[in-house]
Amino acid sequence: MKRKLTLKSIAKEMDVSISTVSKALRDSPEISEETREKIKAYAKLYNYKPNNIALSLKNRKTNTIGVIIPQIVHHFFTTVIRGIEAEARENNYNVIICLSNNDFDKEVLNMELLANGSTDGFILSVSKETMQKEDYHHLNEVIEQGMPVVMFDRVVEGIACDRVLINDTQGAKKGVSHLIRSGCRKIGIITSEDYVSVGRLRTEGYLDAHDDFGIEVDENRILKLDNIDDLGEGSKKRIKEFILNNDLDGLFTVNELFAVYAARVIAQSGKSIPDDISIVCFTDGELSEHMVPSITAVSQHGEEMGRKAASILINKLERPEDETEEYGTTYIETSLIERESTRKLLR
Amino acid sequence: MKRKLTLKSIAKEMDVSISTVSKALRDSPEISEETREKIKAYAKLYNYKPNNIALSLKNRKTNTIGVIIPQIVHHFFTTVIRGIEAEARENNYNVIICLSNNDFDKEVLNMELLANGSTDGFILSVSKETMQKEDYHHLNEVIEQGMPVVMFDRVVEGIACDRVLINDTQGAKKGVSHLIRSGCRKIGIITSEDYVSVGRLRTEGYLDAHDDFGIEVDENRILKLDNIDDLGEGSKKRIKEFILNNDLDGLFTVNELFAVYAARVIAQSGKSIPDDISIVCFTDGELSEHMVPSITAVSQHGEEMGRKAASILINKLERPEDETEEYGTTYIETSLIERESTRKLLR
Repeated sequence: MKRKLTLKSIAKEMDVSISTVSKALRDSPEISEETREKIKAYAKLYNYKPNNIALSLKNRKTNTIGVIIPQIVHHFFTTVIRGIEAEARENNYNVIICLSNNDFDKEVLNMELLANGSTDGFILSVSKETMQKEDYHHLNEVIEQGMPVVMFDRVVEGIACDRVLINDTQGAKKGVSHLIRSGCRKIGIITSEDYVSVGRLRTEGYLDAHDDFGIEVDENRILKLDNIDDLGEGSKKRIKEFILNNDLDGLFTVNELFAVYAARVIAQSGKSIPDDISIVCFTDGELSEHMVPSITAVSQHGEEMGRKAASILINKLERPEDETEEYGTTYIETSLIERESTRKLLR
Repeated sequence: MKRKLTLKSIAKEMDVSISTVSKALRDSPEISEETREKIKAYAKLYNYKPNNIALSLKNRKTNTIGVIIPQIVHHFFTTVIRGIEAEARENNYNVIICLSNNDFDKEVLNMELLANGSTDGFILSVSKETMQKEDYHHLNEVIEQGMPVVMFDRVVEGIACDRVLINDTQGAKKGVSHLIRSGCRKIGIITSEDYVSVGRLRTEGYLDAHDDFGIEVDENRILKLDNIDDLGEGSKKRIKEFILNNDLDGLFTVNELFAVYAARVIAQSGKSIPDDISIVCFTDGELSEHMVPSITAVSQHGEEMGRKAASILINKLERPEDETEEYGTTYIETSLIERESTRKLLR
């Protein structure tokens, strides 16, 4: 059984990175001529075809969408996938999913795997490591070869593709305004350090809402955590201190897990939700729905986001004769789902 | 742009089911000779190649595993995928995921899509509709063509493949025995109708535990619901009546959602958890971990299940010379995660 030559096996054999191989094969000036020539000679010797993407595209349409996401354990991504699947099904498209595990090399390999004749285009949420490296040559490559890309949620600038996003700032503003309207004046926020864009944007929404109602912001009521993807012991300790050392009457959190843990601390301190402290969280998932008390949440409408991304991609695929290359950013509106953790508004 | 001929497009053109096309192309006696000839002639005319699976297999190895699962919104499936991904990564395999949406046709199409040169073998959890139809020709086909299959969780008999399962009966017995040891004597169970195998097996475990301790079972304490995949209004109503009309001191549920809703009803009725009623649920997910009180759970170890399934498949793929076709069933042991919804045992 003959092993198929891949970017990875070439990289291993030549003792260079996958990205170097990928760039050398498309003659990128970033790679020294010597290295480029060596890699190309090796690829030729073993009959590696980097351009079979374009080849296969000319010959046939697969009616398949490739989806690459950082991970799957987040409820949000599973709802986006449900939306992509639904839209694809209605339009007779198949969906193939690969996970990058937030790893740059894995994302490059996934694209190579799927671009190799299996799919017509991509829906993608960029991995954390790719954003850190700011290396997007794999995206540019498939786009140059005629495969459209739609990015959602974790997107980057400077790529010729469409984007689907939620309006984080406006969503957070909705949630915090609701707390203010229900009577809260000392509202805390549990968010991330500013370098995580969703944290920064949602903190802006918190500030905007205060501004709108002419309420002064107390810096002590802003807690910025390093990691918003899970809830470690370090985060728990900081949330506990934050709740116990602040005289809050409202709390906004940028994810469900922070809200759920804060609710536990509040209950243990003998205070009641929503009467002593009301809570609103960003992201509507199973936890906020089923907790006792259930938690008022800003819904990201993941399913709608998935549907929109798929519909934009399918439109591009069905009208390839449209040679005017126009790309846009679509914002999915958030909405507030009122539950037991906030007081009812008098209307 | 020429559309590729697929099972689906042939089925549409000939006005027959996808399954009929698939069977006709492999000369199944289940299909009338007339229909078979017609379909084969059409496929030949348009150059459809049903056998490029075997062809591609002989020529190359893709180092890719195809995973087909009914849906992704269940936390359990996402943990299984995490395990498959981890094991594959360590062995330099890629993973491609497709969802059947519990739909038979979609499962058949997914297999066609992935078997078409994209993957070396499959890890599969069978869709509900496939189980109802008892039509497994698509599985037999890829196996006959030399692509090994490993089934997990929702498996069927009579297919030449390996299986990875959890021991449902033993897991439920562990959970219920824990309730008995902590002093409960009037234990209710919220489970499914017997035709859902996980429900039936877990109910058996509940009965076994009572038997072991010589405690008589009261039939009124067994609630069987139709749907265990979600929590509709009908199920909520029946759970509420069940809790309020039974004098229980313990409760075992076959999933998290039932436990979470039951805990809400118990709290609203003024009883305390665990002192008045203790709770154990099957499946350890985010809900049981983060609820107040957190819920003692039987863990299915989804990640270990995924790792095991991938390791069995990769072993088969790496040693294809092993011509002795032996298949086995591997059981993943469950374990009990003690939390706030049960009393501590005196040891």
